[in-house]
Amino acid sequence: MIRTAIVGYGNLGRGAECAVVNSADMELYGVFTRRDPSTLKTLTGCPVYSMDHILDHKDNIDVLIICGGSATDLPVQTPALARHFNVIDSFDTHARIPEHFANVDAAAREGGKCAVISVGWDPGMFSLNRLYAEAVLPNGKDYTFWGKGVSQGHSDAIRRVEGVEDARQYTIPVDAALEAVRSGSCPELSARQKHLRECFVVAKEGADKARIENEIKTMPNYFADYDTTVHFITKEELMRDHAGIPHGGFVIRTGKTGLNGENSHVIEYSLKLDSNPEFTSSVLCAYARAAARLNSEGAVGCKTVLDIAPAYLSPCSGEELRKRLV
Amino acid sequence: MIRTAIVGYGNLGRGAECAVVNSADMELYGVFTRRDPSTLKTLTGCPVYSMDHILDHKDNIDVLIICGGSATDLPVQTPALARHFNVIDSFDTHARIPEHFANVDAAAREGGKCAVISVGWDPGMFSLNRLYAEAVLPNGKDYTFWGKGVSQGHSDAIRRVEGVEDARQYTIPVDAALEAVRSGSCPELSARQKHLRECFVVAKEGADKARIENEIKTMPNYFADYDTTVHFITKEELMRDHAGIPHGGFVIRTGKTGLNGENSHVIEYSLKLDSNPEFTSSVLCAYARAAARLNSEGAVGCKTVLDIAPAYLSPCSGEELRKRLV
Repeated sequence: MIRTAIVGYGNLGRGAECAVVNSADMELYGVFTRRDPSTLKTLTGCPVYSMDHILDHKDNIDVLIICGGSATDLPVQTPALARHFNVIDSFDTHARIPEHFANVDAAAREGGKCAVISVGWDPGMFSLNRLYAEAVLPNGKDYTFWGKGVSQGHSDAIRRVEGVEDARQYTIPVDAALEAVRSGSCPELSARQKHLRECFVVAKEGADKARIENEIKTMPNYFADYDTTVHFITKEELMRDHAGIPHGGFVIRTGKTGLNGENSHVIEYSLKLDSNPEFTSSVLCAYARAAARLNSEGAVGCKTVLDIAPAYLSPCSGEELRKRLV
Repeated sequence: MIRTAIVGYGNLGRGAECAVVNSADMELYGVFTRRDPSTLKTLTGCPVYSMDHILDHKDNIDVLIICGGSATDLPVQTPALARHFNVIDSFDTHARIPEHFANVDAAAREGGKCAVISVGWDPGMFSLNRLYAEAVLPNGKDYTFWGKGVSQGHSDAIRRVEGVEDARQYTIPVDAALEAVRSGSCPELSARQKHLRECFVVAKEGADKARIENEIKTMPNYFADYDTTVHFITKEELMRDHAGIPHGGFVIRTGKTGLNGENSHVIEYSLKLDSNPEFTSSVLCAYARAAARLNSEGAVGCKTVLDIAPAYLSPCSGEELRKRLV
């Protein structure tokens, strides 16, 4: 049994808790929190410990799933913990991955531990698919589309507009862009051509809706470069119709083969997820298994999903996998 | 530069030739054939050698791409060559993969070489996707669909019917089955419910078409368990409209997460290929790179795609991959 613990107990931590207890070869040791442990009630009733004393549990834990945020938690937590534990995180600030990798790698090597960063679906499963597709069809071009799904960052941005009580923003891939990509024509697509943004907004009583709509649609970086629609709804409608956290997306690569590129091919990978955090934490759980196994074989340092042979993700033997899945 | 040679020069061998010359980090050493080398003209004009003398070239070759057939060539060739070379093959008789693996593994270990078997898209890219999806969503079910594409085996079976001059058979996934699978309902699907078989047949002059059609539709294993349509066409129409070798398919897994399976997810991978042999050989070429690199790092024995970290398939450095693709 792989003794697994969770650091941080938000949506991702709860998802990881479910994924670990549903894995026959993994055992949930407990949850570590920065809050007062006595105030935290877990879904499964598993033990809750204070982060302050996590090093005392070092010998009882094979791997830590770190479920903090990429902005401020993970850049600090992952290197600090990788010195003492095998760790997994879902660091998703794409531009800062090289820097995070270097920090975590140094710490993990110092401690003789194995760390896997940027695990989830993007980065994560989508990264894998970009790599496999590019390696197989080097003469080609790939495209990533996101959605339909809730963007937490864009929802938060709307909530900061004056007069907004609550909001939910969906990122939606444009069908015509998907079709153009699948056709193999390798189009150049602007941000506006690839994705739509649909916003459901609860306005405070008496707020100027026209101003709110205009402020959203013209917000730089978040909305100005997109075709954005704004729907005003009631708090009850938001709770009833938009409580879920669905997401998903597409990685599509088209490419040519033959001596002179005579033949075209389309590789497409897509996800349609009811719960973004539960799916992400399921990927974290599979890579936690891999990290524990790799370290038990002597592997140390930081890795990404690109560095890990697929068989390490499965609890089944190589023999069984060859028989059943190859 | 990875010095690569090709064994066998049919459709797959020609595809491998194109893939290798289009890879900046690989060099095409030549083609080995059982035919008289002087009778064989390659697409690129690369050297052609006799299989009889292949061992004389041992020190000049980093990896061999073996492009023989699974029925009789590969079970003999791959173990024999794995004793002396790093090798890749596309062995695709699913039921015999464990046996082939054992034979090749023993030979490769004896010779200190690295072999990768069952490389292509199914087995190959589809195997990878079955594994990743199962590891991430253990509480679920996966489905593989093939087509629309030409099945060589089924086309050959039709050609053996008396009165048939030539034929092409397309395997076509049933749309309703794909939709049922994507819905997450985990349907039990019979062979007939999953795939249609469409046959284009050129009858010999004076042949009894009704008898031919009946013999095809009732042929055990190949057609009797499917809804099969038979179209009689002229030789000219066959050449004009059915000269290509397209194929493709889908691997779809649906699964549930959450403490009690509250949330559903769909993972879908699909291929749409203009040329089955050229795509297959492009996958072979990427894994040839991996085999050569793995062996240069000391890896020996037989592997499948499940045992190889994705980064080995790419000519780019880990640093570049993390920056660009993760």
